[in-house]
Amino acid sequence: MKVGILGTGGVGRALAEGFAATGHDVVIGTRDVAGLLARIEPDQMGRPPFSAWSSEHPEMRVASFGEAGAHGDLLVNATLGSGSIDALRAAGAGDIDARIVIDASNALDFSGGSASLFVGLNDSLAERIQRAFPAARVVKAWNTMTAALMTNPDLIAGGDHSIPICGDDEDARREVARLLEEFGWRDVVDLGDLTAARAMEAYVLLWLRLYSTFDTPMVNVKVMR
Amino acid sequence: MKVGILGTGGVGRALAEGFAATGHDVVIGTRDVAGLLARIEPDQMGRPPFSAWSSEHPEMRVASFGEAGAHGDLLVNATLGSGSIDALRAAGAGDIDARIVIDASNALDFSGGSASLFVGLNDSLAERIQRAFPAARVVKAWNTMTAALMTNPDLIAGGDHSIPICGDDEDARREVARLLEEFGWRDVVDLGDLTAARAMEAYVLLWLRLYSTFDTPMVNVKVMR
Repeated sequence: MKVGILGTGGVGRALAEGFAATGHDVVIGTRDVAGLLARIEPDQMGRPPFSAWSSEHPEMRVASFGEAGAHGDLLVNATLGSGSIDALRAAGAGDIDARIVIDASNALDFSGGSASLFVGLNDSLAERIQRAFPAARVVKAWNTMTAALMTNPDLIAGGDHSIPICGDDEDARREVARLLEEFGWRDVVDLGDLTAARAMEAYVLLWLRLYSTFDTPMVNVKVMR
Repeated sequence: MKVGILGTGGVGRALAEGFAATGHDVVIGTRDVAGLLARIEPDQMGRPPFSAWSSEHPEMRVASFGEAGAHGDLLVNATLGSGSIDALRAAGAGDIDARIVIDASNALDFSGGSASLFVGLNDSLAERIQRAFPAARVVKAWNTMTAALMTNPDLIAGGDHSIPICGDDEDARREVARLLEEFGWRDVVDLGDLTAARAMEAYVLLWLRLYSTFDTPMVNVKVMR
């Protein structure tokens, strides 16, 4: 499958590696390709600069949001939540009818001193994206965990944990569930329509506390019933 | 231990049964004892009236909030979130220095058409309670699951799932963790100070979606790391 991944941070890199490793044809999109590749200092999160990652992954094409968007039969939003709609617009997210857009981003807002959501609780980033690009089929996935686990669930607990998804289009959810199963996910929890993204985005506040409690981002939950 | 449980809904009843079954001396508090016992219709949630439950549990003393508060070496807030501070005030929650108050309530607000929190995300019901009763040692627990599981984790997945707690007083958290272990909890996740209640209360939005997805409230998560 041709995959356009928007965002070159930890999530974009991890997803690009995961998709490429399972045989998909990936283009990673960014706002300013030349500027990104020129940077040699670690990013804000202390990760090696993208240029270092890129030279280790010469097979991964880096391009503008527009080119990544034109390339992808599937788009993945791995940008910062605050810039997601602009990035998706630059990528032409709504230009191809019924294209699946997986939204892996979060609506985190730390301006109040602790983690909050800039969308509140009666809305979600995923729903905002769906409203901005009504022709796309938005599926929320991957936002509930650290980048390393997204396409490698086996890295903790032998892969025995859960990933929730939601979206208004049932076929799209089914396709994304199949894709996740390709990555090794054994418990994809389909929460139904896109309003569940409110809960998935709010859950991240708990995940952040689990991260600090266990002093590792390699933590997730398994739904027990 | 002498336990004062505030609230006669599903949570109050389940916790009263659980504490009594493990040998604790329970008084259940309510605003209006005579009014409560006079009701013969099912409550808003379709549960049998309290009077029916009470006649099946004659060993459980029902009293005013004030009497339950005076009785308890430990207080448990199982009232509706919107009425919790009033109930705790009536129970004298702050009158005994360093008494543990377990807050099992939620700040749910359905007025916006979907589940939200009336405390927002930069505050929590538990922190409001702590601020209202600074002499008490507030520990948040139990709000993340259905009443039936609170003192009976074995009812699903052989008890193999998690319960988060938090509170500003480390000794109080440790005491509550021990109490939960008496009830059969094998994975008490101590999230640290009371600001974690923001995350625990926000998580309930995900729990509500899991409830509707699996069409049963008998669902919880296990923290995998």
